[in-house]
Amino acid sequence: MALIVQKFGGSSVANAERMFNVARIISETYKKGNDVVVVLSAQGDTTDDLIAKAKEINPNASKREMDMLLSTGEQISVSLCAMALESMGFQAVSLTGWQAGMLTDSNYSAARIKRVRAERIQKELDKKKIVLVTGFQGINKYDDVTTLGRGGSDTSAVALAAALHADLCQIYTDVDGVYTADPRKVTGAKKLEEITFDEMLELASLGAQVLHNRSVEMAKRYNVNLEVLSSLSGKPGTKVKEVVKTMEKTHVSGVAKDTNVARVALIGLEDRPGIAFKIFSLLAKEKINVDIILQSIGRDASKDISFTVSQDDMERAQQVMAANQELIGFKSLEATNKVAKISIVGAGMVNNSGVASKMFEALFSAGININMISTSEIKVSVLVAERDAERAVQAIHDRFFNEFGSGN
Amino acid sequence: MALIVQKFGGSSVANAERMFNVARIISETYKKGNDVVVVLSAQGDTTDDLIAKAKEINPNASKREMDMLLSTGEQISVSLCAMALESMGFQAVSLTGWQAGMLTDSNYSAARIKRVRAERIQKELDKKKIVLVTGFQGINKYDDVTTLGRGGSDTSAVALAAALHADLCQIYTDVDGVYTADPRKVTGAKKLEEITFDEMLELASLGAQVLHNRSVEMAKRYNVNLEVLSSLSGKPGTKVKEVVKTMEKTHVSGVAKDTNVARVALIGLEDRPGIAFKIFSLLAKEKINVDIILQSIGRDASKDISFTVSQDDMERAQQVMAANQELIGFKSLEATNKVAKISIVGAGMVNNSGVASKMFEALFSAGININMISTSEIKVSVLVAERDAERAVQAIHDRFFNEFGSGN
Repeated sequence: MALIVQKFGGSSVANAERMFNVARIISETYKKGNDVVVVLSAQGDTTDDLIAKAKEINPNASKREMDMLLSTGEQISVSLCAMALESMGFQAVSLTGWQAGMLTDSNYSAARIKRVRAERIQKELDKKKIVLVTGFQGINKYDDVTTLGRGGSDTSAVALAAALHADLCQIYTDVDGVYTADPRKVTGAKKLEEITFDEMLELASLGAQVLHNRSVEMAKRYNVNLEVLSSLSGKPGTKVKEVVKTMEKTHVSGVAKDTNVARVALIGLEDRPGIAFKIFSLLAKEKINVDIILQSIGRDASKDISFTVSQDDMERAQQVMAANQELIGFKSLEATNKVAKISIVGAGMVNNSGVASKMFEALFSAGININMISTSEIKVSVLVAERDAERAVQAIHDRFFNEFGSGN
Repeated sequence: MALIVQKFGGSSVANAERMFNVARIISETYKKGNDVVVVLSAQGDTTDDLIAKAKEINPNASKREMDMLLSTGEQISVSLCAMALESMGFQAVSLTGWQAGMLTDSNYSAARIKRVRAERIQKELDKKKIVLVTGFQGINKYDDVTTLGRGGSDTSAVALAAALHADLCQIYTDVDGVYTADPRKVTGAKKLEEITFDEMLELASLGAQVLHNRSVEMAKRYNVNLEVLSSLSGKPGTKVKEVVKTMEKTHVSGVAKDTNVARVALIGLEDRPGIAFKIFSLLAKEKINVDIILQSIGRDASKDISFTVSQDDMERAQQVMAANQELIGFKSLEATNKVAKISIVGAGMVNNSGVASKMFEALFSAGININMISTSEIKVSVLVAERDAERAVQAIHDRFFNEFGSGN
């Protein structure tokens, strides 16, 4: 007997038929003798509909009132799901964020969970009830309703799993696991059986939008075993955990593409100390996140510094740089958003220098030029022209996963 | 400066335009220097839509989960209304039943308010905020959401007014006050400026559905000054209070019609003690409420007893009587639902025997036969054939309100 937390997203509970599908998954888990705590998102378009209602009345409504409004969506989901389980003969109880003891800070619309006071849930589990908890929401110290913002329901599920010392936290989505690359775009993409938290974090931040980073970070911190799986396929998904079985083997878990990248280049900087500090402290002051940084020995006695930011930040980054041209002392500025970042992620690659070169070789063979390179312990990223991005992913994926069978 | 509780029903907040109309009424009350607490129902058809959603999943859903589901409707209303007030430059805060401290018993779907813990509301009022509270709902001692059933939002408003010692509790509806008769049906029906709690109770129970009895009873118990008025007309409504200015004058407040009446007659009973007790204890055991009772000296040595019940109870009342025919000892049984009860209500009529005879005279002049008569301190009711009901109301109303000017 185990304690299992299951989370279902908005499309999984969008109508009565799907709600019963979810209820069946829950009841099957329960019938195996497990304690089951379920976290649900709002049904289908409910949240969007509520936002539209609010916008009609006040496009600049306070976040406090928006949270009060939006939190009703999940409350509808959990009560309907409880009714579905009741009709199947199971004892279920739905709980709102405050009833479930989801205590957050007061940052309305993007609150952080501070603590879970799980006594009520525990009491219901002791009565052998299936407990359904509203995702995405909590209360702050003023007893006001808060919502958690993007990735909120996943985070709710992981927080509950941590507080209840659950054996497993299953995140049901519309994909059936984590793949070595986007299966809709890359031929031969394979589902991973297991992946580490760190790899999942890198993949999520690289645009493989299976799990929100926030929930993975929390799972890593509290060592919550995650599983990503589909509410429709019924097949095992991908396990996300601290250490995976294949850990000892050098392996690459996946290839990811991020097109929300822009590159800014400062040409002809004087080659003297403190320049880089000046540039990046100016950007930090503007809260512009910089990803890859490349410093080259430039022509003659000058050098170039280029860096990448998200596309939303490109224009502001240019403005900040231009406004401080004299202070920084560069000759010219170039910026483009016609780039993409392609990355391979794998927990074991730090011990195998061959991984990076294999990636570069794959790109070379495909005739794709590399703009910038960045490496971390579990990741190698390259910046390529946007038009080459899809081909680059396929070439790298073929090289690691298809030419020599599974893994590398 | 006063503390005023205002309640708006579902049709008053049905869409953005009406929500702003409500927000204007609230803000005008606030701008006069009053503290304002507002109670709102769910928008328009929201509750019906939620019930339909539930029925699709489970027609026999537990009441606990139904309450969890339905309580979202008022939460949507209060947050949207807060947004409307914010957009008009006012500081408002919305509160759910649990945040507002509406403590109820655990009778889901028809809970009774036990206590209002109004500290939070008071704190918000102290900050000069307009406080918006969800009607119709509260929490029980298990921290579970409950709903109050029919007339719930009116009752929420009165309970808040009592707990906060409000100077006035305004119930905004789609009629602009209490009339001497149904203005849609009776020519010359006049709006009353004032009416006592007892008169209002009699009128409400007689089918003048302006205020639910439950809320009037509570207002009477805690001596909360009520006002019934329209959210559209902007005119003063009808005040409902313990003692009204015109109290000393013999007066009739209104004429009401109740068609949800059935008459059961037991013919040919033996004239011996204990018969009436037997009949009405049998009915009480079946939880059948009896309204008017008439005992006549019958032909020969026997007598007849007839009584009225609601139409829903007629068949059961007949069955109970028939099953106990031997015990009770009657010869035959007659029942009909083709009757209507017409009543005049007025706090002062007890001191004026002329009121009843004036009513009978009006009916006689109109050629309407009286079946049964029942009187209380502030009410005279007669049972007439259903086909005569409308004419009876008009004739009585003309006699009391039109022939000799206002009042009587």
